[in-house]
Amino acid sequence: MPTDQCATEIALRLHKGGKIEVRSAIRLRDNDDLALAYTPGVGYVTRLLSEHPELIHDFTWRANLVAVVTDGTAVLGLGNVGPEAALPVMEGKALLFKEMAGINAVPICLGCTDPQEIIDTICRIAPSFGGINLEDISAPRCFEIEDTLQASLSIPVFHDDQHGTAIVVLAALQNASKVARLDFSRMRVVVSGAGAAGYAVSLMLHEAGVPAITVVDSAGILHPERTGLNSAKRKLAEITNPDGMKGSLREAMKGANVFIGVSGGEISEDIVASLADGAIIFALANPTPEIDPGVAARYASVVGTGRSDFPNQINNVLAFPGVFKGALAVRATRITPSMKLAAAEALSQAVQDPLGPEKILPSVFDPTVAHAVAQRVAAAAIADNVARTGGDGS
Amino acid sequence: MPTDQCATEIALRLHKGGKIEVRSAIRLRDNDDLALAYTPGVGYVTRLLSEHPELIHDFTWRANLVAVVTDGTAVLGLGNVGPEAALPVMEGKALLFKEMAGINAVPICLGCTDPQEIIDTICRIAPSFGGINLEDISAPRCFEIEDTLQASLSIPVFHDDQHGTAIVVLAALQNASKVARLDFSRMRVVVSGAGAAGYAVSLMLHEAGVPAITVVDSAGILHPERTGLNSAKRKLAEITNPDGMKGSLREAMKGANVFIGVSGGEISEDIVASLADGAIIFALANPTPEIDPGVAARYASVVGTGRSDFPNQINNVLAFPGVFKGALAVRATRITPSMKLAAAEALSQAVQDPLGPEKILPSVFDPTVAHAVAQRVAAAAIADNVARTGGDGS
Repeated sequence: MPTDQCATEIALRLHKGGKIEVRSAIRLRDNDDLALAYTPGVGYVTRLLSEHPELIHDFTWRANLVAVVTDGTAVLGLGNVGPEAALPVMEGKALLFKEMAGINAVPICLGCTDPQEIIDTICRIAPSFGGINLEDISAPRCFEIEDTLQASLSIPVFHDDQHGTAIVVLAALQNASKVARLDFSRMRVVVSGAGAAGYAVSLMLHEAGVPAITVVDSAGILHPERTGLNSAKRKLAEITNPDGMKGSLREAMKGANVFIGVSGGEISEDIVASLADGAIIFALANPTPEIDPGVAARYASVVGTGRSDFPNQINNVLAFPGVFKGALAVRATRITPSMKLAAAEALSQAVQDPLGPEKILPSVFDPTVAHAVAQRVAAAAIADNVARTGGDGS
Repeated sequence: MPTDQCATEIALRLHKGGKIEVRSAIRLRDNDDLALAYTPGVGYVTRLLSEHPELIHDFTWRANLVAVVTDGTAVLGLGNVGPEAALPVMEGKALLFKEMAGINAVPICLGCTDPQEIIDTICRIAPSFGGINLEDISAPRCFEIEDTLQASLSIPVFHDDQHGTAIVVLAALQNASKVARLDFSRMRVVVSGAGAAGYAVSLMLHEAGVPAITVVDSAGILHPERTGLNSAKRKLAEITNPDGMKGSLREAMKGANVFIGVSGGEISEDIVASLADGAIIFALANPTPEIDPGVAARYASVVGTGRSDFPNQINNVLAFPGVFKGALAVRATRITPSMKLAAAEALSQAVQDPLGPEKILPSVFDPTVAHAVAQRVAAAAIADNVARTGGDGS
């Protein structure tokens, strides 16, 4: 491993001048080409689109274009770093959209943090894009922003910190449950963190049929009698925690057989030791997992982290490229719950090798994953009646 | 020449799927590359930028990135076609930015037309971009939008329909005046059109020392006693028309020795015949020039149009790539009048062949033009104290 100083130097060197670029997708050799791509040729296309705006999908890059939008308020584990410092992360996301799914993506870093201003701004630039990927917007603002945007726009709006994480966690848990021989119906799951990821993971596990979920935030277990909860946490308090537990993470962990960390912070070994035998541990905080993978392995049958240097990397890049590829292919107007469940299902089935304690997900470099996810997402969109075409461009 | 039907078919075919794409500018082969370009590597860059936001120029694509922004209200000669139909034109512009000057450009087509909403939206997305190219926004709204934006933002804001046109017209007129042996001081210039292009052309010729300019709009010659003028036309009425002429285009043209058409419409041959001997005619309406080039040639010593199929194509693509290249190279905070004059000067000197009646401008495909313009623009920015670096990235 390089030292931190050295890793910083290498990373800065790589980032010099940026990680993405805009390129011509056509040839421009002479006046004839120019007269087609620009005036007067482009005038024919514009005239056609002014009469048939829906043809924008066919004759512009929009059908395969996503805006990666952030306000820089919740970037990586670094918090509110502002729009400028967020840009390298959004460039990285755009890079992954292209490399994994062939989708064009453009970073939009906003110089405002008021939810209504964010919503207005995205609505006004939306005619340029085929989809909106929200990124690194702090909770609970992110929930209102996504919901209002999706209600206003007829293109997919997808907050990746929520749904990308939830899809990959669900897929990982489906396969881990096979490895650990632990049915969803018998699981007692602790989710540590009730921000964007914690909210979406808990909701999706609930929808997928996990009966006993306990969500813990910095003030302890969510339960209906707790006061001062925002509306997202209130909803979680109502649909989770069937036994009405109260107390801290320590109480929640005792005897649980799945731990999902999306919070950061460090959990002491004695708490880890209180989990049920053969538990599943997903400690997803980056760069430092909530439970050291070495410690986790002493008590768990399956361990996953967000890191590439340990087995079972649980990384959103397994989900968002395929989700958008599928949604854009059928010109879906939104991304429905069953499209997300279909994505998780496809992802859990995309593991090429036999499943095992160190193999519950495909590699992030498996070139078949995005396509497999996209196919199932597109089919779910059609079944849900949110597709505008059959996926063949018709 | 292909028929219109055939030209439409060929243009549509070329536009299928769009004309630009986003590409990776780095290699992404394995987990090590991913760990540098995305988490955890990007975290080092983000942490650095959160402490030193000005380093965004070095470690992201922003320093070489322009937003091409329109509201679709004044697209080509087609008028208010809306943001969707405007997208192919903005893609064409982005394509030219890259091909001519190596600049990345992203089309942003806005779903709003209220000037304040446009201003707010552009200010909020501005942290993502190194410059703003306004495009095809109708007059007089475009003037307020550009002025307010430039006052708010510390990156260049440039309405190409105004300044790009004015720069190329001035350069063309400088060389045409040599060919026609007609000093600026002796010129009587008629500008037909007082929209975005007419306003900027008139202002720039005034700044360049042309003493006698008469501007004509659809209601006739601009003069200080005319009522109902918007503030841009009021300004023109005050600084042009030194002889206090009144009347129609017919009166204005009589005995003039330069005609500049940026209005559309058709001018009858008897009016053309009333120009002074050896006049200069720039009939720039696209696709149909205000004066047929064949008719113009009977009465003028130099004829220019906006079209690629006649000599002396007066096209903005000769200006905007180099203007932004120069401004971005020194991280200019704005584009000043002397930067625009420097661009025109550079462009008029960039003609490789000897000047002649059919050779007053370089070819739009001359690869040296953008660089030559950029160098002069950068030097003017430094002289004007609006540059943040010396142009060598220091």
